[in-house]
Amino acid sequence: MKNIDVCLTPDLLHQYELENKIVVVVDILRATSCMVSGLANGVKEIVPVATLEECKALQETGYLAAAERNGSKAEGFDMGNSPFEYMDEKVQGKKVAVTTTNGTLAISKSLKAKEVLIGAFLNLEAVTNYLKNKEEDIIVLCAGWKGKFNLEDTLFAGALCHQLKSDFQFACDAPLAAEAMYLTARKDMIKYMEDSSHAKRLAKLNVKKDISYCIQESIYDVVPYLSGKALVALTT
Amino acid sequence: MKNIDVCLTPDLLHQYELENKIVVVVDILRATSCMVSGLANGVKEIVPVATLEECKALQETGYLAAAERNGSKAEGFDMGNSPFEYMDEKVQGKKVAVTTTNGTLAISKSLKAKEVLIGAFLNLEAVTNYLKNKEEDIIVLCAGWKGKFNLEDTLFAGALCHQLKSDFQFACDAPLAAEAMYLTARKDMIKYMEDSSHAKRLAKLNVKKDISYCIQESIYDVVPYLSGKALVALTT
Repeated sequence: MKNIDVCLTPDLLHQYELENKIVVVVDILRATSCMVSGLANGVKEIVPVATLEECKALQETGYLAAAERNGSKAEGFDMGNSPFEYMDEKVQGKKVAVTTTNGTLAISKSLKAKEVLIGAFLNLEAVTNYLKNKEEDIIVLCAGWKGKFNLEDTLFAGALCHQLKSDFQFACDAPLAAEAMYLTARKDMIKYMEDSSHAKRLAKLNVKKDISYCIQESIYDVVPYLSGKALVALTT
Repeated sequence: MKNIDVCLTPDLLHQYELENKIVVVVDILRATSCMVSGLANGVKEIVPVATLEECKALQETGYLAAAERNGSKAEGFDMGNSPFEYMDEKVQGKKVAVTTTNGTLAISKSLKAKEVLIGAFLNLEAVTNYLKNKEEDIIVLCAGWKGKFNLEDTLFAGALCHQLKSDFQFACDAPLAAEAMYLTARKDMIKYMEDSSHAKRLAKLNVKKDISYCIQESIYDVVPYLSGKALVALTT
């Protein structure tokens, strides 16, 4: 039977074979939530890059440039890392280059996979439906925080494993643990998330509105997937 | 306030500063459960070593030699990795050298810490009581399985964090997640554990009896701690 596994942080990615697998990258607060929101709201494509310099270089060729470091917008860029910026009228039909502390780095580490998809609570059902009938094994890659385990990405991984458990078997203990955490947390996700270290970090930056937004389940039908260097929308 | 953190596998240990901290090494199935059982039942000292060769060399100087690889006893050694072997009459008053797939490796990676202790469900309360009034920060190091996250070590980490949460604050999301898993699992630990990959691995080796034994809480008052190269019993 095909299987699903969870890589709890990019620092553990060396333990996984990506070849011929589908990787779902997740960075709930907030990179992948932004990507889903942007592509669902008319952004043409999103190019994830690892460094501020690469992002700047694309800005000079006409991309809107979004850059976040340590939770805040980096100086000299058009956008930061709030999903609301990705829904603004000014980004409709535009190409966006983006670099963030964790999410874009996780994507750049996934390039050996057969397919790279972007997951968030916002498109949980769409990702589930897309994956359900796939024959490949799946790895959910949690972006974490600077290599460390985080709660919100693991909760999403657990949600996705839970959705897919009749079609994919759990490859090891990480899917099992993530699912258990999700089943405990989903009764009151906001309360559960408020204790997380990244939510606390963001709360200091006045982005509570972003957090409430990012934990909404399945409000968009879009599955961002990596085509060449750009994320584009696969509408299911 | 002093804090407690959880390192989910030795492969993430580079993210943690060990200096001046107390590390609690945990490998529930079965290395640290064996160590607690042995020292509680009259073993004089236990010297953890990383390789079969080092273990053999100590055997030649008069140590009883315990060696496990991939769940089974390695050939040519006196003991494997079952806690019941550590309670046998023949080990009373003896010095034991031990090498295992995960647990002894985790210990050897912890040597920069101010103190290295051994934790297991079997001595949960004793470890808790010892740590409660300590001034140092604590890191619970889960031995995992060949660098991968595992369920049972994380459950113990969660149990210890839960016991200590009025005295230590959680340093990041890992203690939070581990505690949530423990609180979910403790209602029916056996059932929960049966799904874990390592329990399945061991079930094939006919060691179900070991598993039921290892998840008993607080049946021994002993805290094994590293003194020089040997683990000795601190009786609380």
